[in-house]
Amino acid sequence: MRAIVNIFLKEGVLDPQGKAIHHALDAMNFEGVEDVRMGKQIVLKLSTTSKEKALEEVEKMAQEILANTVIEDYTIEIVE
Amino acid sequence: MRAIVNIFLKEGVLDPQGKAIHHALDAMNFEGVEDVRMGKQIVLKLSTTSKEKALEEVEKMAQEILANTVIEDYTIEIVE
Repeated sequence: MRAIVNIFLKEGVLDPQGKAIHHALDAMNFEGVEDVRMGKQIVLKLSTTSKEKALEEVEKMAQEILANTVIEDYTIEIVE
Repeated sequence: MRAIVNIFLKEGVLDPQGKAIHHALDAMNFEGVEDVRMGKQIVLKLSTTSKEKALEEVEKMAQEILANTVIEDYTIEIVE
Protein backbone atom coordinates (compact mmCIF):
# COMPACT_ATOMS: atom_id res chain seq x y z
CA MET A 1 0.00 0.00 0.00
CA ARG A 2 1.28 3.45 -0.84
CA ALA A 3 0.49 6.85 0.64
CA ILE A 4 1.01 10.02 -1.34
CA VAL A 5 1.39 13.13 0.79
CA ASN A 6 1.27 16.45 -1.06
CA ILE A 7 2.58 19.36 0.98
CA PHE A 8 2.14 22.92 -0.19
CA LEU A 9 2.47 26.40 1.28
CA LYS A 10 -0.72 27.99 2.59
CA GLU A 11 -2.35 30.74 0.57
CA GLY A 12 -0.63 34.03 1.29
CA VAL A 13 2.68 32.50 2.34
CA LEU A 14 5.49 33.76 0.14
CA ASP A 15 6.83 31.09 -2.24
CA PRO A 16 10.31 32.08 -3.45
CA GLN A 17 10.87 28.81 -5.33
CA GLY A 18 7.62 29.26 -7.22
CA LYS A 19 8.57 32.86 -8.01
CA ALA A 20 11.97 31.76 -9.31
CA ILE A 21 10.36 29.18 -11.61
CA HIS A 22 7.87 31.79 -12.82
CA HIS A 23 10.69 34.21 -13.69
CA ALA A 24 12.63 31.48 -15.45
CA LEU A 25 9.58 30.52 -17.54
CA ASP A 26 9.04 34.19 -18.47
CA ALA A 27 12.70 34.51 -19.43
CA MET A 28 12.30 31.49 -21.72
CA ASN A 29 9.29 33.10 -23.41
CA PHE A 30 6.65 30.73 -22.09
CA GLU A 31 3.47 32.78 -22.19
CA GLY A 32 0.20 32.57 -20.30
CA VAL A 33 1.63 31.54 -16.94
CA GLU A 34 -0.20 33.50 -14.23
CA ASP A 35 1.17 31.92 -11.10
CA VAL A 36 3.52 29.15 -10.00
CA ARG A 37 3.48 27.38 -6.65
CA MET A 38 6.04 24.84 -5.62
CA GLY A 39 5.29 22.02 -3.22
CA LYS A 40 6.61 18.70 -2.03
CA GLN A 41 5.35 15.22 -2.72
CA ILE A 42 6.31 12.42 -0.36
CA VAL A 43 5.48 8.84 -1.37
CA LEU A 44 5.50 6.30 1.45
CA LYS A 45 5.47 2.56 0.90
CA LEU A 46 3.64 0.96 3.81
CA SER A 47 3.45 -2.66 4.98
CA THR A 48 -0.07 -2.40 6.41
CA THR A 49 -2.97 -3.75 4.38
CA SER A 50 -5.65 -1.68 6.11
CA LYS A 51 -6.52 1.53 4.31
CA GLU A 52 -7.99 3.05 7.48
CA LYS A 53 -4.90 2.26 9.56
CA ALA A 54 -2.62 3.62 6.83
CA LEU A 55 -4.54 6.88 6.64
CA GLU A 56 -4.49 7.26 10.41
CA GLU A 57 -0.73 6.62 10.64
CA VAL A 58 0.16 8.91 7.73
CA GLU A 59 -2.08 11.66 9.14
CA LYS A 60 -0.02 11.46 12.35
CA MET A 61 3.26 11.52 10.37
CA ALA A 62 2.15 14.57 8.40
CA GLN A 63 1.14 16.44 11.55
CA GLU A 64 4.23 15.55 13.55
CA ILE A 65 7.07 15.61 11.06
CA LEU A 66 6.34 15.79 7.33
CA ALA A 67 4.59 19.17 7.19
CA ASN A 68 5.18 22.43 8.99
CA THR A 69 1.53 23.10 9.74
CA VAL A 70 2.18 26.74 10.62
CA ILE A 71 2.85 27.59 7.00
CA GLU A 72 1.96 24.41 5.08
CA ASP A 73 -1.18 22.43 4.24
CA TYR A 74 -1.21 18.83 3.09
CA THR A 75 -3.37 16.24 1.42
CA ILE A 76 -3.08 12.47 1.86
CA GLU A 77 -4.03 9.89 -0.73
CA ILE A 78 -3.88 6.15 -0.09
CA VAL A 79 -3.47 3.98 -3.20
CA GLU A 80 -3.54 0.23 -4.02
CA MET B 1 -6.83 26.34 -15.84
CA ARG B 2 -4.23 24.70 -13.63
CA ALA B 3 -1.48 22.24 -14.45
CA ILE B 4 -0.02 19.98 -11.77
CA VAL B 5 3.45 18.69 -12.55
CA ASN B 6 4.76 15.93 -10.29
CA ILE B 7 8.49 15.40 -10.58
CA PHE B 8 10.17 12.42 -8.96
CA LEU B 9 13.53 10.70 -9.12
CA LYS B 10 13.78 7.74 -11.46
CA GLU B 11 13.86 4.24 -9.98
CA GLY B 12 17.38 3.43 -8.85
CA VAL B 13 18.47 7.03 -8.38
CA LEU B 14 19.58 7.61 -4.79
CA ASP B 15 17.12 9.77 -2.84
CA PRO B 16 18.88 11.26 0.23
CA GLN B 17 15.87 13.38 1.25
CA GLY B 18 13.61 10.33 1.21
CA LYS B 19 16.18 8.38 3.24
CA ALA B 20 16.40 11.19 5.81
CA ILE B 21 12.61 11.22 6.21
CA HIS B 22 12.59 7.42 6.53
CA HIS B 23 15.20 7.56 9.30
CA ALA B 24 13.31 10.33 11.10
CA LEU B 25 10.07 8.31 10.97
CA ASP B 26 11.90 5.25 12.35
CA ALA B 27 13.41 7.37 15.13
CA MET B 28 9.90 8.54 16.06
CA ASN B 29 8.68 4.93 16.26
CA PHE B 30 6.43 5.00 13.23
CA GLU B 31 6.25 1.37 12.16
CA GLY B 32 5.50 -0.31 8.86
CA VAL B 33 7.23 2.20 6.60
CA GLU B 34 9.12 0.26 3.92
CA ASP B 35 10.31 3.05 1.66
CA VAL B 36 10.10 6.82 1.32
CA ARG B 37 10.57 8.79 -1.90
CA MET B 38 10.58 12.56 -2.01
CA GLY B 39 9.49 14.49 -5.08
CA LYS B 40 8.42 17.94 -6.17
CA GLN B 41 5.01 19.20 -7.12
CA ILE B 42 4.74 22.33 -9.24
CA VAL B 43 1.30 23.89 -9.72
CA LEU B 44 1.01 26.31 -12.65
CA LYS B 45 -1.94 28.66 -13.10
CA LEU B 46 -2.44 29.15 -16.85
CA SER B 47 -4.46 31.71 -18.77
CA THR B 48 -5.24 29.41 -21.71
CA THR B 49 -8.67 27.78 -21.90
CA SER B 50 -7.60 24.96 -24.20
CA LYS B 51 -6.72 21.77 -22.39
CA GLU B 52 -4.71 20.50 -25.37
CA LYS B 53 -2.69 23.71 -25.65
CA ALA B 54 -2.05 23.73 -21.91
CA LEU B 55 -0.79 20.15 -21.96
CA GLU B 56 1.47 20.87 -24.93
CA GLU B 57 2.96 23.99 -23.31
CA VAL B 58 3.50 22.37 -19.91
CA GLU B 59 5.06 19.30 -21.55
CA LYS B 60 7.60 21.66 -23.14
CA MET B 61 8.22 23.45 -19.81
CA ALA B 62 8.78 20.15 -18.02
CA GLN B 63 11.24 18.97 -20.68
CA GLU B 64 13.16 22.22 -20.91
CA ILE B 65 13.29 23.57 -17.39
CA LEU B 66 11.12 21.99 -14.68
CA ALA B 67 12.56 18.49 -14.66
CA ASN B 68 16.08 17.16 -14.99
CA THR B 69 15.18 14.33 -17.35
CA VAL B 70 18.50 12.56 -16.84
CA ILE B 71 17.53 11.58 -13.30
CA GLU B 72 13.88 12.60 -13.00
CA ASP B 73 10.53 11.52 -14.44
CA TYR B 74 7.38 13.62 -14.40
CA THR B 75 3.64 13.42 -14.78
CA ILE B 76 1.36 16.26 -15.92
CA GLU B 77 -2.26 16.67 -14.92
CA ILE B 78 -4.47 19.45 -16.27
CA VAL B 79 -7.41 20.42 -14.05
CA GLU B 80 -10.51 22.68 -14.30
